[in-house]
Amino acid sequence: MPSLADVTRGRILFGGDYNPEQWPEEVWPEDVRLMREAGVTTVTVGVFSWAMLEPTPGAREFSWLRRLLDLLHEGGIEVCLATPTASPPPWLGERYPGTLPVTADGTTLWWGSRNQWCPSSADYRVHALALVEDLAAEFGHHQAVRMWHISNEYGPVCHCEESAERFRAWLHKRYESLDALNAAWGTAFWSQRHADWSTVIPPRSAPYIPNPAQVLDFQRFSSDVLLECFTAERDLLRRHTPHLPVTTNFMTLYKHVDCWSFAKEEDVVSLDSYPDPGDPRAMVRSSLGQDMTRSQAGGPWMQMEMAAGSVNWRGVNRAKPADRLRLEALQAVARGADALCFFQWRASRAGAEKFHSALLPHAGADTPHHRAVRALGRELGLIAEVVGAKVEAEVAVVFDWPSWWALEQRGRLSDRVDLEPIALGWHGALWDAHLTADYVHPEADLSRYRMVVVPNLYLASDRAVQNLTGFVRAGGTLVSGFFTGVADETDTIRPGGVDERLCEVLGVHPLEWRPLDEPVPLGDASTGTLWSEELALAEGTETLATLADGTPVVTRNGTAYYLSTLPSPEYLQRLLASAARAAGVQPALPGLPEQVEAVRRGPLLFVLNHGSQPAVVPLPAAHHELLTDRAVSGDLVLPPRDAAVLRPL
Amino acid sequence: MPSLADVTRGRILFGGDYNPEQWPEEVWPEDVRLMREAGVTTVTVGVFSWAMLEPTPGAREFSWLRRLLDLLHEGGIEVCLATPTASPPPWLGERYPGTLPVTADGTTLWWGSRNQWCPSSADYRVHALALVEDLAAEFGHHQAVRMWHISNEYGPVCHCEESAERFRAWLHKRYESLDALNAAWGTAFWSQRHADWSTVIPPRSAPYIPNPAQVLDFQRFSSDVLLECFTAERDLLRRHTPHLPVTTNFMTLYKHVDCWSFAKEEDVVSLDSYPDPGDPRAMVRSSLGQDMTRSQAGGPWMQMEMAAGSVNWRGVNRAKPADRLRLEALQAVARGADALCFFQWRASRAGAEKFHSALLPHAGADTPHHRAVRALGRELGLIAEVVGAKVEAEVAVVFDWPSWWALEQRGRLSDRVDLEPIALGWHGALWDAHLTADYVHPEADLSRYRMVVVPNLYLASDRAVQNLTGFVRAGGTLVSGFFTGVADETDTIRPGGVDERLCEVLGVHPLEWRPLDEPVPLGDASTGTLWSEELALAEGTETLATLADGTPVVTRNGTAYYLSTLPSPEYLQRLLASAARAAGVQPALPGLPEQVEAVRRGPLLFVLNHGSQPAVVPLPAAHHELLTDRAVSGDLVLPPRDAAVLRPL
Amino acid sequence: MPSLADVTRGRILFGGDYNPEQWPEEVWPEDVRLMREAGVTTVTVGVFSWAMLEPTPGAREFSWLRRLLDLLHEGGIEVCLATPTASPPPWLGERYPGTLPVTADGTTLWWGSRNQWCPSSADYRVHALALVEDLAAEFGHHQAVRMWHISNEYGPVCHCEESAERFRAWLHKRYESLDALNAAWGTAFWSQRHADWSTVIPPRSAPYIPNPAQVLDFQRFSSDVLLECFTAERDLLRRHTPHLPVTTNFMTLYKHVDCWSFAKEEDVVSLDSYPDPGDPRAMVRSSLGQDMTRSQAGGPWMQMEMAAGSVNWRGVNRAKPADRLRLEALQAVARGADALCFFQWRASRAGAEKFHSALLPHAGADTPHHRAVRALGRELGLIAEVVGAKVEAEVAVVFDWPSWWALEQRGRLSDRVDLEPIALGWHGALWDAHLTADYVHPEADLSRYRMVVVPNLYLASDRAVQNLTGFVRAGGTLVSGFFTGVADETDTIRPGGVDERLCEVLGVHPLEWRPLDEPVPLGDASTGTLWSEELALAEGTETLATLADGTPVVTRNGTAYYLSTLPSPEYLQRLLASAARAAGVQPALPGLPEQVEAVRRGPLLFVLNHGSQPAVVPLPAAHHELLTDRAVSGDLVLPPRDAAVLRPL
Repeated sequence: MPSLADVTRGRILFGGDYNPEQWPEEVWPEDVRLMREAGVTTVTVGVFSWAMLEPTPGAREFSWLRRLLDLLHEGGIEVCLATPTASPPPWLGERYPGTLPVTADGTTLWWGSRNQWCPSSADYRVHALALVEDLAAEFGHHQAVRMWHISNEYGPVCHCEESAERFRAWLHKRYESLDALNAAWGTAFWSQRHADWSTVIPPRSAPYIPNPAQVLDFQRFSSDVLLECFTAERDLLRRHTPHLPVTTNFMTLYKHVDCWSFAKEEDVVSLDSYPDPGDPRAMVRSSLGQDMTRSQAGGPWMQMEMAAGSVNWRGVNRAKPADRLRLEALQAVARGADALCFFQWRASRAGAEKFHSALLPHAGADTPHHRAVRALGRELGLIAEVVGAKVEAEVAVVFDWPSWWALEQRGRLSDRVDLEPIALGWHGALWDAHLTADYVHPEADLSRYRMVVVPNLYLASDRAVQNLTGFVRAGGTLVSGFFTGVADETDTIRPGGVDERLCEVLGVHPLEWRPLDEPVPLGDASTGTLWSEELALAEGTETLATLADGTPVVTRNGTAYYLSTLPSPEYLQRLLASAARAAGVQPALPGLPEQVEAVRRGPLLFVLNHGSQPAVVPLPAAHHELLTDRAVSGDLVLPPRDAAVLRPL
Repeated sequence: MPSLADVTRGRILFGGDYNPEQWPEEVWPEDVRLMREAGVTTVTVGVFSWAMLEPTPGAREFSWLRRLLDLLHEGGIEVCLATPTASPPPWLGERYPGTLPVTADGTTLWWGSRNQWCPSSADYRVHALALVEDLAAEFGHHQAVRMWHISNEYGPVCHCEESAERFRAWLHKRYESLDALNAAWGTAFWSQRHADWSTVIPPRSAPYIPNPAQVLDFQRFSSDVLLECFTAERDLLRRHTPHLPVTTNFMTLYKHVDCWSFAKEEDVVSLDSYPDPGDPRAMVRSSLGQDMTRSQAGGPWMQMEMAAGSVNWRGVNRAKPADRLRLEALQAVARGADALCFFQWRASRAGAEKFHSALLPHAGADTPHHRAVRALGRELGLIAEVVGAKVEAEVAVVFDWPSWWALEQRGRLSDRVDLEPIALGWHGALWDAHLTADYVHPEADLSRYRMVVVPNLYLASDRAVQNLTGFVRAGGTLVSGFFTGVADETDTIRPGGVDERLCEVLGVHPLEWRPLDEPVPLGDASTGTLWSEELALAEGTETLATLADGTPVVTRNGTAYYLSTLPSPEYLQRLLASAARAAGVQPALPGLPEQVEAVRRGPLLFVLNHGSQPAVVPLPAAHHELLTDRAVSGDLVLPPRDAAVLRPL
Repeated sequence: MPSLADVTRGRILFGGDYNPEQWPEEVWPEDVRLMREAGVTTVTVGVFSWAMLEPTPGAREFSWLRRLLDLLHEGGIEVCLATPTASPPPWLGERYPGTLPVTADGTTLWWGSRNQWCPSSADYRVHALALVEDLAAEFGHHQAVRMWHISNEYGPVCHCEESAERFRAWLHKRYESLDALNAAWGTAFWSQRHADWSTVIPPRSAPYIPNPAQVLDFQRFSSDVLLECFTAERDLLRRHTPHLPVTTNFMTLYKHVDCWSFAKEEDVVSLDSYPDPGDPRAMVRSSLGQDMTRSQAGGPWMQMEMAAGSVNWRGVNRAKPADRLRLEALQAVARGADALCFFQWRASRAGAEKFHSALLPHAGADTPHHRAVRALGRELGLIAEVVGAKVEAEVAVVFDWPSWWALEQRGRLSDRVDLEPIALGWHGALWDAHLTADYVHPEADLSRYRMVVVPNLYLASDRAVQNLTGFVRAGGTLVSGFFTGVADETDTIRPGGVDERLCEVLGVHPLEWRPLDEPVPLGDASTGTLWSEELALAEGTETLATLADGTPVVTRNGTAYYLSTLPSPEYLQRLLASAARAAGVQPALPGLPEQVEAVRRGPLLFVLNHGSQPAVVPLPAAHHELLTDRAVSGDLVLPPRDAAVLRPL
């Protein structure tokens, strides 16, 4: 199989989305010249070109793209060629209204933006695949083209009748019989029993709380049907261009698709990462996305999109200082990226994203902004030896999409218990403790890890439960957050409220869930938030912290820890650091100060100071610093927002 | 007529909803055993069983229910049998799409939750009534069955064309002529005059503020059309089982249906009561609902649903401590309940309410939670002598649904002036003053009360006005809140702005309404909120409090008090206590401390300490305390959240 | 052409909307008597009378209106006769469903409120115009009728298919070719290219950010299509009654229609002004609306609606003290109004606005409220010599609807950067500096002004840019707010990010936009809010203020000032006062205290004390005060909320 290494060939890819159809062709040569000057290696072309490539049904206007690819190739710029199927042209919706998505309340979503396609629509698929096939035939062997970028940020959801048909087929395959479906969905409750497949529909607007298992299966289906669209395109492309790797771009903590299932079908795993310059903990969120993507890739991965400056879809879109941009880029490389691409090369003068930053801003090349971009291009060249190297982690964090979907259904005990803040809370504590972690599917092989962390796994399959309990029985350290192992795969609550096998390993049994609306004090200055439980402790289970009334809240049973609340960050950091130490896991460097991130990738050590104060990092040995090309030893002093990339001497 | 006494027969009923279709039949005998051990007398069966009883159109699957009823009967558990018409099966909506409700903006509400039925739909009624009739024939004479529970928490509203047809028929009956309708709706305003009945429709989405009289009549119609559904079922049941009482369950401060009109059609009045464990004043809200239900019942009533622990439909659903559960249960009995039922017996493992607590929790019978349930069952047995006894009140609070509906229309002077906080404010002041009150319809006979309280009666019919003024003229004490008597039954403002007859009795005439967005100081440390008025005072009207600028805000004219604001709780408590004293009304006991609730029911005196401190309650005579079976006299010391049930020795 | 002077004839018109169809005819003579006693000169009749005038399709019921006009004429009350086309009767929507507006998400807006008409509907227009023509023929020469009021507060927007048709025709006229439209809309972005006119539609609900240029053009179209409705009525009326002036009523900072384009088509420009009694800066907002209306009128104008007391469409609708009402009325006259009309004469007893105040309140004529109305009527008689006089301003503020629409599209850099707060911020600073300003279209002749202020002009046409730069080159003083000159008429960003010609005149070039979510300190105690920029300064450009890091934020290049932030009010007031002084512009009086508004209109000087303390206003010469009929000189002492109207002696 082709891989990212076939594209990088020893270089960190640098570039971004390039949408030249927005400018007159006279601008293109200037673009290529400026790209070269900025160190750009690779651009992604054609993500939104469907209407230009197929202006009317069945037409093919490929000549402009050929001229463009030729020009890029002459200029030494390589191309990640996109299939343009994320944004159909207006004519598709007009001629085939069934391709337009319909919301749960029956509202049609029209053209005039992007993404207006129903993933179940046969008409959509026919037209998308025909164009993809012709593109592959026409350009798959063009010398500039090194990789395929399929569609974009998969996410459309549709509740139309054709979607209902496909949903029924998917359910039929999953459950085989209507009785099994009725059992799985618990339709005995509220008189929802289906006597005929024809009454099985997507969850649509309803008078009250919808059936959570139906919603969960529709989320599974919606992810799977998008994956079906992806693999259909991929299979076509592979037939034409078996030498070219394919990818599609994920987003950090993106709920619409199960990235584990997508990653398995890709040659290259890639991520769009947009940390918020206004968020002082943005590096926690971005590192979570990067660690997750690396884990899905099983090695080097591609940052497909990031912003050189502000985005345009938050409330207040803060500008991004140059030193922050540099830290974000180095953080991605440190955590396994072999490619750093941006949305987009040249800022759009029109359209819905004309205020999104670009490598080349509205104000042009002679600006501090673009000079920072060029400096970044240069620096990536200085650390190219990292390409292909792996990040090795001894800690794994369990993350699962179906559990996420099930956790956040309506009718739950607390609408504040969302997975995202919990995942960020736990990941932030690992980050604060300077512990690098992989992410794992709950049924993945855990044998190479010393410690496994489960921020929350509300829904756990039998295999997941066996996986986790087996890991502990084999000597592994498990740290589990609250409300884990509660439901089985059909979102049915386990007998007793929580899976008994898991309870046995953890040495606790929750008797009652007690959501919190205010933080409560733990033993010391720390607090617990979101949740608490009435816990029955097994013989031998140790209490590490209690509520004021003595209720155990953090427990340890051998190497298995349980937390019935989300502690404040400092407490969680200390707990994880201590559990890691006990499990034989050390941070990348001893004695790291706060706000400093240190990650080992292959032989290199990345040290990033995210703080606003200079940081002193004690180095245990002498190193060569690649960005400044100098030897360092003893105390490495890093100015605020500065970084070092160190190779042992 | 059959009544609740036919069911209680000297026992306080104890039990709850039992939905055994959710479990394999093997579980049922265990359920019956555990029910017996917990002291359960009665369970409600079949509320959501339509799809199990009629799995396909016209089919009848009654055998499982017969086996269940037999089993319950053998186990000594009595049954309140529900008609399952609150939640039609999916096939009804699929085969008869007109049974699905449509919102004001045209959105169809689908199956997949519950309540998806249009109360005006002939197809719905045909199918619902056919099943009800067959159930009555089949099970109406089963020995286990003691009572009928019709539908559940009536509430569906629909704006479809069939609803429009029925709305027009309702209006035709109410107004007879289109001219009368035009006059009542004030259609001369904004060019809304109807020249033909065909243009008369439910209020649907519109560009701006809808016609408030049209909206009000649609709310009246929506309540009446639900009542029509109720009485249609009831009449069928009465034909088959004249010996069985029927009920349907209300909710506290539930806006959808006019409970006065429903209560008149029931044999037993019942209430679903869900005080929020996170609300320190929850006992005020629950006592309001209980006093209202008792007043509607005219005697003992049934608490059809309550929660043994948390619910699952608030934002953060707090757990419920056992002492709080006990207080809630005793409060209901104190205020007239002869039945305490819970939603539900056994916690659901699947479906939209699987996180709602139950008598038997997920964690099973061997839990503190279930032990508290059993203890409650035992204690209810100790106070069974209360069954059938009446609560006598000398104070009445006026409450009216049409006035509520009219008050909260769009286009009003302040969107903060909702009836619920006002009603709770006044009821809370009565509670704080240890005064037990009935609730009354504004046109009800008031002659047996000494004091009548009107928190707000924005809309008052001529009969209501005459009723209130006649009460004062007959020597009664009237305490009226602001913005009362403003509109007539068609939501037309009375000439002069407020009904002149009422003004005469109160000795005040509001010249201008002055809503408040901030509290304003009254004379002392108290404040007024929500509202103020420019008041003209009649000769002889006394000013009891003023705003800082001297504007009168609380007045007294003989035995008629008027408040042009909502005072802070302490002020309102003092005012009501003083007006009550002057009217010869005393609390249940003299010298009651704060946070202690004391209610007399028949010969028994219930004393509940809702506070977190021990309370000392001076008893004027020796009593027997039923829960502890001991004699008490002098100072009764009640620990926090403890209660006593006292019979004079 | 007829004008407002033909109606005023030396009097300040005083009156309001009169909707007598809401009362029995017996009430009418009392109305006329009370009007006379209150000094009412003029009432607006028939705004919402369509259903009374045409109760069934094609019917004409004009006799009641004739009786009314006769009665008013006999009583000496003149009439502004309305075309009733703002609120069609229910039958229009029922018989012609295509006349009902459809929202972007496909929801139909029904009758039952008002404004339920699609401005593109041919059926609507046919029926509206036929009625208008008949009204004109019947009543255009009635002696009572002095003026036409066309429709009411134009605003309906529709996304239906007929609207799409008319939108396409409008676009065809604007762009001629589809290529030009594609270029203007930037459809190369996100694959939105149209290959056929049939796919061009209004912006409807879509999966993500809509095309901003499409939205902008739809807003232009929506304003133009309403104007088309207006001019169609106007042309009919002019044919019948060339002697009568026509108007329609605007609202302050009303986004739906481009008032510049409407004003050009009117004989009289009129405004509905509803300052919030709860807003301590309400006089800033009202003066902005009045200055804008005066500028659109080019002379005296008409305040068509205001409230004598509270309105009923805010959250909490505060009552209006009498002194505040008087100040509001005098402020309007000071700023050019020759007519003061109210919504409405007599408070409605029913309908959606029954809680809106009126000249004659629910509580009747013998109330403080109505006595204040009568006092106002008397005082307007005392200052009638102002009628026809002009307000002369040396400062102009640029305001543009398309720029407003474009600025606030989705996908922008900060959703807090709305035009309204910015416009109010700048206008408030001018008000605080006691500077009276006109408002101007960005392409208007600026030669009569010394100073031009541009709070924001995000979208600036080439002609607007040339106009502003030419003004500076001719010696004028320009003060420009941030983010001005960014986009051209198609909402395409100017090359370089900001128009180069404007940058040259201002001596600054913004290199990066940096929205703020928190205020930042400027040099002194002031702060900047909403926005900042990285600025490149040209040779000779002076820095007047910087951010803490030294970034220039307020600059001056000769007579051209630039502000890259919205400074706190005091700073902006000082800057504008200083720039005005330098430009030779003085306030109406020297030494005016805070909270005092002074405006010269013709020979008269209006001085209004909005403060809660007495104000001392030093008069440079002796004056006659018209309201008190006395001579004043030296220090004029004005009690709180009092006013003086001064004529130099």
